[in-house]
Amino acid sequence: MKTDNVYEAGHTHEAEALTEFCPQYARAINVLGRRWMGVILRVLLTGPHRFNEILGVIPGLSDPTLSQRLRELETEGLVTRRVLPTSPVRVEYELTPAGRDLERVVREISTWAATWMSAAPAT
Amino acid sequence: MKTDNVYEAGHTHEAEALTEFCPQYARAINVLGRRWMGVILRVLLTGPHRFNEILGVIPGLSDPTLSQRLRELETEGLVTRRVLPTSPVRVEYELTPAGRDLERVVREISTWAATWMSAAPAT
Repeated sequence: MKTDNVYEAGHTHEAEALTEFCPQYARAINVLGRRWMGVILRVLLTGPHRFNEILGVIPGLSDPTLSQRLRELETEGLVTRRVLPTSPVRVEYELTPAGRDLERVVREISTWAATWMSAAPAT
Repeated sequence: MKTDNVYEAGHTHEAEALTEFCPQYARAINVLGRRWMGVILRVLLTGPHRFNEILGVIPGLSDPTLSQRLRELETEGLVTRRVLPTSPVRVEYELTPAGRDLERVVREISTWAATWMSAAPAT
Protein backbone atom coordinates (compact mmCIF):
# COMPACT_ATOMS: atom_id res chain seq x y z
CA MET A 1 0.00 0.00 0.00
CA LYS A 2 1.29 3.41 -0.90
CA THR A 3 0.32 6.17 1.44
CA ASP A 4 3.05 8.59 0.40
CA ASN A 5 2.04 8.80 -3.24
CA VAL A 6 -1.27 10.65 -3.18
CA TYR A 7 -2.67 12.72 -6.02
CA GLU A 8 -2.26 16.43 -5.81
CA ALA A 9 -5.30 17.79 -4.05
CA GLY A 10 -7.72 19.10 -6.65
CA HIS A 11 -10.20 20.10 -4.00
CA THR A 12 -8.13 22.09 -1.54
CA HIS A 13 -11.11 22.75 0.73
CA GLU A 14 -10.98 19.08 1.69
CA ALA A 15 -8.41 18.93 4.44
CA GLU A 16 -8.45 15.28 5.45
CA ALA A 17 -6.95 12.52 3.32
CA LEU A 18 -9.24 9.63 2.39
CA THR A 19 -8.46 6.30 4.00
CA GLU A 20 -8.09 3.44 1.53
CA PHE A 21 -10.89 1.38 3.05
CA CYS A 22 -13.80 2.30 5.33
CA PRO A 23 -16.34 -0.36 6.38
CA GLN A 24 -19.25 2.09 6.74
CA TYR A 25 -18.55 3.51 3.29
CA ALA A 26 -18.39 -0.03 1.87
CA ARG A 27 -21.74 -0.87 3.47
CA ALA A 28 -23.37 2.31 2.16
CA ILE A 29 -22.02 1.58 -1.33
CA ASN A 30 -23.43 -1.93 -1.14
CA VAL A 31 -26.94 -0.56 -0.50
CA LEU A 32 -26.89 2.56 -2.68
CA GLY A 33 -25.14 0.84 -5.58
CA ARG A 34 -27.83 -1.76 -6.17
CA ARG A 35 -29.35 -1.67 -9.65
CA TRP A 36 -31.88 1.21 -10.01
CA MET A 37 -31.35 2.40 -6.42
CA GLY A 38 -29.74 5.69 -7.39
CA VAL A 39 -32.42 6.58 -9.91
CA ILE A 40 -35.26 5.66 -7.52
CA LEU A 41 -33.68 7.79 -4.78
CA ARG A 42 -33.41 10.72 -7.18
CA VAL A 43 -37.14 10.53 -7.96
CA LEU A 44 -38.01 10.42 -4.24
CA LEU A 45 -35.73 13.39 -3.53
CA THR A 46 -38.15 15.50 -5.59
CA GLY A 47 -40.98 14.61 -3.14
CA PRO A 48 -43.21 11.73 -1.99
CA HIS A 49 -44.44 9.57 -4.85
CA ARG A 50 -46.86 6.74 -5.47
CA PHE A 51 -45.56 3.43 -6.80
CA ASN A 52 -46.85 4.00 -10.34
CA GLU A 53 -45.51 7.53 -10.42
CA ILE A 54 -41.98 6.23 -9.75
CA LEU A 55 -42.43 3.46 -12.32
CA GLY A 56 -43.66 6.01 -14.85
CA VAL A 57 -40.59 8.24 -14.80
CA ILE A 58 -37.84 5.59 -14.90
CA PRO A 59 -37.46 3.98 -18.35
CA GLY A 60 -36.83 0.24 -18.18
CA LEU A 61 -37.61 -0.24 -14.48
CA SER A 62 -39.89 -3.23 -13.89
CA ASP A 63 -42.72 -3.52 -11.38
CA PRO A 64 -41.13 -6.38 -9.32
CA THR A 65 -37.73 -4.66 -9.22
CA LEU A 66 -39.26 -1.42 -7.95
CA SER A 67 -41.17 -3.37 -5.26
CA GLN A 68 -37.97 -5.05 -4.13
CA ARG A 69 -35.93 -1.85 -4.06
CA LEU A 70 -38.63 0.00 -2.09
CA ARG A 71 -38.73 -2.83 0.46
CA GLU A 72 -34.94 -2.66 0.76
CA LEU A 73 -35.09 1.12 1.21
CA GLU A 74 -37.68 0.63 3.97
CA THR A 75 -35.49 -2.02 5.65
CA GLU A 76 -32.50 0.34 5.53
CA GLY A 77 -34.57 3.11 7.08
CA LEU A 78 -34.31 5.38 4.03
CA VAL A 79 -37.96 5.31 2.92
CA THR A 80 -41.30 5.16 4.73
CA ARG A 81 -44.52 3.89 3.21
CA ARG A 82 -47.45 6.14 4.04
CA VAL A 83 -51.06 5.07 3.67
CA LEU A 84 -53.27 8.13 3.25
CA PRO A 85 -56.90 7.67 4.43
CA THR A 86 -58.44 8.71 1.16
CA SER A 87 -61.01 6.75 -0.85
CA PRO A 88 -59.58 4.80 -2.54
CA VAL A 89 -56.62 4.53 -0.19
CA ARG A 90 -53.51 6.27 -1.50
CA VAL A 91 -50.06 4.85 -0.74
CA GLU A 92 -47.04 7.10 -0.95
CA TYR A 93 -43.33 6.47 -0.56
CA GLU A 94 -41.43 9.20 1.24
CA LEU A 95 -37.79 9.61 2.19
CA THR A 96 -36.83 9.57 5.88
CA PRO A 97 -34.32 12.16 7.17
CA ALA A 98 -31.52 9.66 6.38
CA GLY A 99 -32.88 9.28 2.86
CA ARG A 100 -33.26 13.02 2.31
CA ASP A 101 -29.69 13.52 3.47
CA LEU A 102 -28.59 11.66 0.32
CA GLU A 103 -29.38 14.77 -1.70
CA ARG A 104 -25.75 15.94 -1.60
CA VAL A 105 -24.58 12.55 -2.89
CA VAL A 106 -27.12 12.58 -5.73
CA ARG A 107 -26.18 16.16 -6.64
CA GLU A 108 -22.45 15.38 -6.71
CA ILE A 109 -23.05 12.36 -8.96
CA SER A 110 -25.26 14.53 -11.20
CA THR A 111 -22.56 17.20 -11.45
CA TRP A 112 -19.92 14.59 -12.23
CA ALA A 113 -22.17 12.90 -14.81
CA ALA A 114 -22.93 16.21 -16.53
CA THR A 115 -19.20 16.92 -16.80
CA TRP A 116 -17.84 13.52 -17.81
CA MET A 117 -20.56 11.14 -18.93
CA SER A 118 -21.50 12.64 -22.29
CA ALA A 119 -17.99 12.34 -23.75
CA ALA A 120 -17.28 8.88 -22.32
CA PRO A 121 -17.50 5.76 -24.49
CA ALA A 122 -20.81 3.93 -24.60
CA THR A 123 -21.26 0.71 -22.61
CA MET B 1 -45.84 12.98 -11.03
CA LYS B 2 -45.88 15.61 -8.35
CA THR B 3 -43.71 18.60 -9.00
CA ASP B 4 -45.40 20.93 -6.51
CA ASN B 5 -44.83 18.78 -3.44
CA VAL B 6 -41.10 18.97 -2.83
CA TYR B 7 -39.39 18.56 0.50
CA GLU B 8 -38.39 21.69 2.31
CA ALA B 9 -34.86 22.49 1.24
CA GLY B 10 -32.45 21.22 3.85
CA HIS B 11 -29.48 22.42 1.85
CA THR B 12 -30.39 26.00 1.08
CA HIS B 13 -27.13 26.60 -0.79
CA GLU B 14 -28.48 24.36 -3.55
CA ALA B 15 -30.58 26.66 -5.70
CA GLU B 16 -31.78 24.41 -8.48
CA ALA B 17 -34.42 21.71 -7.99
CA LEU B 18 -33.48 18.17 -9.01
CA THR B 19 -35.28 16.77 -12.02
CA GLU B 20 -36.93 13.41 -11.41
CA PHE B 21 -34.96 11.61 -14.09
CA CYS B 22 -31.70 12.42 -15.86
CA PRO B 23 -30.22 9.99 -18.44
CA GLN B 24 -26.58 10.97 -17.77
CA TYR B 25 -27.08 10.50 -14.03
CA ALA B 26 -28.71 7.10 -14.69
CA ARG B 27 -25.76 6.07 -16.85
CA ALA B 28 -23.22 7.19 -14.25
CA ILE B 29 -25.11 5.28 -11.55
CA ASN B 30 -25.11 2.18 -13.73
CA VAL B 31 -21.29 2.25 -13.92
CA LEU B 32 -20.42 3.52 -10.45
CA GLY B 33 -22.99 1.33 -8.71
CA ARG B 34 -21.52 -1.99 -9.88
CA ARG B 35 -20.48 -4.31 -7.08
CA TRP B 36 -17.13 -3.24 -5.51
CA MET B 37 -16.78 -0.26 -7.87
CA GLY B 38 -17.15 2.34 -5.13
CA VAL B 39 -14.62 0.70 -2.84
CA ILE B 40 -12.09 0.20 -5.66
CA LEU B 41 -12.44 3.86 -6.66
CA ARG B 42 -11.86 4.93 -3.06
CA VAL B 43 -8.59 2.99 -2.92
CA LEU B 44 -7.41 4.53 -6.21
CA LEU B 45 -8.32 8.02 -4.97
CA THR B 46 -5.54 7.65 -2.39
CA GLY B 47 -2.99 7.20 -5.22
CA PRO B 48 -1.89 4.78 -7.98
CA HIS B 49 -1.89 1.14 -6.83
CA ARG B 50 -0.77 -2.23 -8.08
CA PHE B 51 -3.35 -4.98 -8.56
CA ASN B 52 -2.36 -6.89 -5.43
CA GLU B 53 -2.29 -3.73 -3.34
CA ILE B 54 -5.93 -3.05 -4.20
CA LEU B 55 -6.85 -6.68 -3.56
CA GLY B 56 -5.07 -6.55 -0.20
CA VAL B 57 -7.05 -3.66 1.28
CA ILE B 58 -10.57 -4.70 0.24
CA PRO B 59 -11.90 -7.61 2.34
CA GLY B 60 -13.87 -10.13 0.29
CA LEU B 61 -12.90 -8.84 -3.15
CA SER B 62 -11.85 -11.68 -5.48
CA ASP B 63 -9.07 -11.63 -8.06
CA PRO B 64 -11.37 -12.14 -11.13
CA THR B 65 -13.85 -9.51 -9.93
CA LEU B 66 -11.08 -6.93 -9.46
CA SER B 67 -9.75 -7.73 -12.96
CA GLN B 68 -13.20 -7.23 -14.43
CA ARG B 69 -13.87 -3.96 -12.60
CA LEU B 70 -10.48 -2.54 -13.58
CA ARG B 71 -11.17 -3.38 -17.22
CA GLU B 72 -14.57 -1.68 -16.97
CA LEU B 73 -12.96 1.38 -15.37
CA GLU B 74 -10.45 1.51 -18.25
CA THR B 75 -13.27 1.19 -20.81
CA GLU B 76 -15.15 4.03 -19.14
CA GLY B 77 -12.05 6.19 -19.20
CA LEU B 78 -11.77 6.42 -15.41
CA VAL B 79 -8.56 4.41 -14.92
CA THR B 80 -5.34 4.00 -16.89
CA ARG B 81 -3.01 1.03 -16.64
CA ARG B 82 0.62 2.10 -16.49
CA VAL B 83 3.51 -0.25 -17.14
CA LEU B 84 6.63 1.03 -15.40
CA PRO B 85 9.94 -0.02 -17.03
CA THR B 86 11.38 -1.55 -13.90
CA SER B 87 12.76 -5.05 -13.52
CA PRO B 88 10.53 -6.92 -12.97
CA VAL B 89 7.98 -4.76 -14.77
CA ARG B 90 5.63 -2.96 -12.40
CA VAL B 91 2.01 -2.36 -13.41
CA GLU B 92 0.02 0.37 -11.72
CA TYR B 93 -3.57 1.46 -11.97
CA GLU B 94 -4.11 5.19 -11.84
CA LEU B 95 -7.20 7.37 -12.03
CA THR B 96 -7.68 9.65 -15.04
CA PRO B 97 -8.89 13.25 -14.48
CA ALA B 98 -12.48 11.97 -14.83
CA GLY B 99 -11.78 9.31 -12.21
CA ARG B 100 -10.10 11.73 -9.81
CA ASP B 101 -13.06 14.07 -10.13
CA LEU B 102 -15.13 11.40 -8.35
CA GLU B 103 -13.47 12.41 -5.09
CA ARG B 104 -16.37 14.72 -4.17
CA VAL B 105 -18.85 11.89 -4.74
CA VAL B 106 -16.81 9.46 -2.61
CA ARG B 107 -16.45 12.07 0.14
CA GLU B 108 -20.17 12.83 0.22
CA ILE B 109 -21.01 9.12 0.46
CA SER B 110 -18.41 8.78 3.24
CA THR B 111 -19.91 11.69 5.16
CA TRP B 112 -23.41 10.27 4.74
CA ALA B 113 -22.26 6.78 5.77
CA ALA B 114 -20.51 8.11 8.89
CA THR B 115 -23.71 9.89 9.91
CA TRP B 116 -26.35 7.28 9.11
CA MET B 117 -24.86 3.86 8.47
CA SER B 118 -23.76 2.88 12.00
CA ALA B 119 -27.27 3.16 13.47
CA ALA B 120 -29.07 1.55 10.52
CA PRO B 121 -30.19 -2.10 10.63
CA ALA B 122 -27.78 -4.72 9.34
CA THR B 123 -28.38 -6.26 5.93
